[in-house]
Amino acid sequence: MPLLTRITGPRDLDRLSPEQLDELAGEIRTFLVEAVSKTGGHLGPNLGVVELTIALHRVFESPRDRVLFDTGHQAYVHKLLTGRQDFSQLRTKGGLSGYPSRAESEHDVIENSHASTVLGWADGLAKANQVLGKDDHVVAVIGDGALTGGMAWEALNNIAAAKDRPLVIVVNDNERSYAPTIGGLANHLATLRTTDGYERFLTRGREMLERTPVVGRPLYETLHGAKKGLKDFIAPQGMFEDLGLKYVGPIDGHDMEALESALTRAKRFGGPVIVHCITQKGRGYEHAEHDEADRFHGIGPIHPDTGLPVKTAAASWTSVFGDEMVRIGREREDLVAITAAMLQPVGLKKFAEAFPERVYDVGIAEQHAAVSAAGLATGGLHPVFAVYATFLNRAFDQVLMDVALHKCGVTFVLDRAGVTGDDGASHNGMWDMSLLQIVPSLRISAPRDAEQLRAQLREAVAVDDAPTVVRYSKGVVGPAVPAVGRVGGMDVLREAGTEHPDVLLVSVGALAPMCLETAKLLDKQGISTTVVDPRWVKPVDEALAPLAEKHRIVVTVEDNSRVGGVGSAIAQALRDAGVDLPLRDFGIPPRFLDHASRKEVLAEIGLTAPDIARQVTGLVAGLQGAYETERATADERVERTRD
Amino acid sequence: MPLLTRITGPRDLDRLSPEQLDELAGEIRTFLVEAVSKTGGHLGPNLGVVELTIALHRVFESPRDRVLFDTGHQAYVHKLLTGRQDFSQLRTKGGLSGYPSRAESEHDVIENSHASTVLGWADGLAKANQVLGKDDHVVAVIGDGALTGGMAWEALNNIAAAKDRPLVIVVNDNERSYAPTIGGLANHLATLRTTDGYERFLTRGREMLERTPVVGRPLYETLHGAKKGLKDFIAPQGMFEDLGLKYVGPIDGHDMEALESALTRAKRFGGPVIVHCITQKGRGYEHAEHDEADRFHGIGPIHPDTGLPVKTAAASWTSVFGDEMVRIGREREDLVAITAAMLQPVGLKKFAEAFPERVYDVGIAEQHAAVSAAGLATGGLHPVFAVYATFLNRAFDQVLMDVALHKCGVTFVLDRAGVTGDDGASHNGMWDMSLLQIVPSLRISAPRDAEQLRAQLREAVAVDDAPTVVRYSKGVVGPAVPAVGRVGGMDVLREAGTEHPDVLLVSVGALAPMCLETAKLLDKQGISTTVVDPRWVKPVDEALAPLAEKHRIVVTVEDNSRVGGVGSAIAQALRDAGVDLPLRDFGIPPRFLDHASRKEVLAEIGLTAPDIARQVTGLVAGLQGAYETERATADERVERTRD
Repeated sequence: MPLLTRITGPRDLDRLSPEQLDELAGEIRTFLVEAVSKTGGHLGPNLGVVELTIALHRVFESPRDRVLFDTGHQAYVHKLLTGRQDFSQLRTKGGLSGYPSRAESEHDVIENSHASTVLGWADGLAKANQVLGKDDHVVAVIGDGALTGGMAWEALNNIAAAKDRPLVIVVNDNERSYAPTIGGLANHLATLRTTDGYERFLTRGREMLERTPVVGRPLYETLHGAKKGLKDFIAPQGMFEDLGLKYVGPIDGHDMEALESALTRAKRFGGPVIVHCITQKGRGYEHAEHDEADRFHGIGPIHPDTGLPVKTAAASWTSVFGDEMVRIGREREDLVAITAAMLQPVGLKKFAEAFPERVYDVGIAEQHAAVSAAGLATGGLHPVFAVYATFLNRAFDQVLMDVALHKCGVTFVLDRAGVTGDDGASHNGMWDMSLLQIVPSLRISAPRDAEQLRAQLREAVAVDDAPTVVRYSKGVVGPAVPAVGRVGGMDVLREAGTEHPDVLLVSVGALAPMCLETAKLLDKQGISTTVVDPRWVKPVDEALAPLAEKHRIVVTVEDNSRVGGVGSAIAQALRDAGVDLPLRDFGIPPRFLDHASRKEVLAEIGLTAPDIARQVTGLVAGLQGAYETERATADERVERTRD
Repeated sequence: MPLLTRITGPRDLDRLSPEQLDELAGEIRTFLVEAVSKTGGHLGPNLGVVELTIALHRVFESPRDRVLFDTGHQAYVHKLLTGRQDFSQLRTKGGLSGYPSRAESEHDVIENSHASTVLGWADGLAKANQVLGKDDHVVAVIGDGALTGGMAWEALNNIAAAKDRPLVIVVNDNERSYAPTIGGLANHLATLRTTDGYERFLTRGREMLERTPVVGRPLYETLHGAKKGLKDFIAPQGMFEDLGLKYVGPIDGHDMEALESALTRAKRFGGPVIVHCITQKGRGYEHAEHDEADRFHGIGPIHPDTGLPVKTAAASWTSVFGDEMVRIGREREDLVAITAAMLQPVGLKKFAEAFPERVYDVGIAEQHAAVSAAGLATGGLHPVFAVYATFLNRAFDQVLMDVALHKCGVTFVLDRAGVTGDDGASHNGMWDMSLLQIVPSLRISAPRDAEQLRAQLREAVAVDDAPTVVRYSKGVVGPAVPAVGRVGGMDVLREAGTEHPDVLLVSVGALAPMCLETAKLLDKQGISTTVVDPRWVKPVDEALAPLAEKHRIVVTVEDNSRVGGVGSAIAQALRDAGVDLPLRDFGIPPRFLDHASRKEVLAEIGLTAPDIARQVTGLVAGLQGAYETERATADERVERTRD
């Protein structure tokens, strides 16, 4: 990589010739395929933005100018050009983050990898520049998929309102979110792309550029400087200009010269402007270019030559859900499914194949997923909205005010709940069981294994007068954890084996094996422990308080923020029942987690059997002093991992 | 009201002549001014939709067809036409709700009065009709202001995608949300409104309709059936048609015949269609028609002849905030303010007058308010986003992932927090202190009086590396509640007066006088009580646990959902500190509250000094049996009010 290794920062790009830039783009693609094959990561999106990112860093002066990426998984090339070329530890503890990271570089701004935020950030930064009298530039890169999110619309509406506030919006249009982008906007973008004018521009544009004698300014500008008729020859303007945004494009997003020319024009424009770039996801890597199923959006380790995964996947929570949905769909004609642009990742592909007329991809639009679900339910159907747990944050108000207030039977299936680890802070599904506790009448289930997932999904879709939630972890579903008894609606996973047991351990979801391990460790200390899995963690089972009263202390363990989670809800239920036993609630501490493997994160935050057993031992033995020491040690460890 | 009183349902409209319809419209306006003058309510919006609502109910067949209203405060005329004409108890306990209510009528669908939801509901209902093979119609009425919300965009994008799924969108364009609608969309609507074609259509349209001999179909259709040139003569199509939505309009929203013609065409179209109606807010009531300050959007009781309020308003929490913002704004040039289309209601009018270049009205777009605030803060300013507490629900993900994760110094000022009462379930600000507990690093203050609001606002805007929240009630700010001491950062409002006090009572915000009253009642029972106001309720003050340990029980009282609120946070903090005292947390039960006055609601849910004192007395006396009886009684009362 003779060129790439000499790029230590964006300004090193300035002195490269057009030929060298092409060479650099090739080197970057080779680098990405080799590096990401080994570690896993987001391959397709980054292969698509190689030329675009180079052009951005040649035209704008980061970090003085702010170069912002929406859904930061498209920032690998940006990392390579801003002094970060060691990808060997990508997305692993201590290595590079898979997203922009302000701790890594002054060139990074937005760490949040939820979609559609970049235009809002850009609007705020541009306003700040205006108030402070700075003439720095702000440029925001957003995919066509992310434009389907409501936040993008709110921002466009605001950006368009200030004609004199410079802001460059680059639409990275690859016609896909994860899957092909849908909706009216997608159709409109397609119109912009496929008009005769655009075809002619692409096929003849370069040729014309070279042949036409233009003095002093590029042909492109000359054309645009001419009368409306000529402008329309190149592209129809459409809705962006209706809103009041200057539209430049469409641009071939792999033509470095065209990109630089367009971005330079946009930079000089002095107001809000959209540069519409057409890119190809997976560009330059054969397996990814023809990737209808979008397998190369985010990948685990693969064989670079074949594009095939190194490991064959075991049965995942997602696939168990997906298969059961098809079975229920056959039994119930009123069952419909909703996805927010993630049909395949959330496991709805098979359902869509079986019942194409009963599945709705609403775009990256969680708010709409939830509110339209309320409409579907009111209209007589039972919708299941399957979504990553962390993305449901976007639809809290709709779950509360549209679904719950209206007593709609809507099932929310939360995939990737709990610590997910390697995607970093904004992908952990650690908020849902706190957030959703707030919603009256809503019921939450947290299945511990595949059988329970199937059973609880069926229980959920049977509820037709309130929202239900089924939440489960990322990845491979563990072995079956059988119940040894039942108390109320709760499964007893382990009997304490004594008449006066010490500890009631309440296990939530996939943490059941770890909780059973904890009980064993406590057993060795002579502490008798009952383990129950409530199955439905909201509302708190009425049998819990009477059961708790038979024990000396209650311990709750959940893969969710400690704040306002299941532990807090159980504590409140016990207080309300007048059961004032000591209770300790274990969960995720209320802070943002750095990327690392799930196992590493759980160890860091003390969510392991030995950690919990140690703390509970201290408490039960009445060794208050010992307990506090443990506690201090634990806090200190948390403190250390935070630094 | 000879005509109005004879309308018992929509079908009674069918047999009225054009002249009678005009007469009915006049009667309805007279009725609205008289009725709402007495009770208070939403006057301006309803005066604007009299003809539109009549036309909707003549063309569509509710309840089989679904007539849906966004932000239901524009549904008074709909109520009058669907059998609800007793407005004497409007918005009071037992009387008509100020919004649609499914308990009132089968003609009502959406009770949520947060804006921009109707298109999502309509999309869901239309999809359900399609799946179930029904040919019923769905018509959604949405204001131009509500179109600035992201949910509306997400829905439009989905609705436009299905060319064969019928759905009628009526844009009720009065050029205002509360205040004039802003942004690129507003400019575009203005273009649609003010083109030459539109002017000519309005002035000559009716005339032409009558003169032109058209056989078999209305002139309007004839025109539209003709070539593009003619279509553009009537109106430019613009962005809606770019998205793939059939556009009809603009229509004079006070011309019943034009409305019926347009709605009939739209109903027959067989796909998604937008009918753009121009209405005048406050139409027919002189004081409201010329209402620049939008005083007549929502009103208290007024003198109908003068339009002046019956009572002069005392100093409100809102005005205390507004005045202090101006003072801080003079001291700090980096202070900027944000509102989501509610400059006046949230108290930012004076700030906007003093610093017009430092205030941003982002439209009904709470998500954008929060994310652009992150950008403003990162750009070097300190933004203050003032918003009704219930509307911040819309921006949870942005507060968490954009503001908090990025350590941005942004202050959220939550007006109308706690029980607001008469606007019903979706306007109570009862979720914020639970929702925001979840957000790491975020700090929440709940001032108890005007002086504390001023002080805590200043403390909030001084924090530049984390989000801060200041939350206060609706309405008149109460008398000053002086502190008698300080422990840590907490104000002691009352010393127990004994060495071994019984109760530590933690009072949150404006409930301080009620908590002091509770302490007095406990005193009479021989129960010594300390009352503290933590001022900042998140994070829990470190001095709280040591202070609590000096008491026998801890009682928390907050004007927020009991679930995951301040009481839960304090309980957790005490557990973490190893202080296992009994604790009772009083707050709002986790259910949706029916409309009634704040005082009535508080009494219903047992959030009064006598109720709390009775329960605490039972507990302290160790009279567990008595306590449980109290509890059962309270639960029973809650149960009763629910039914």
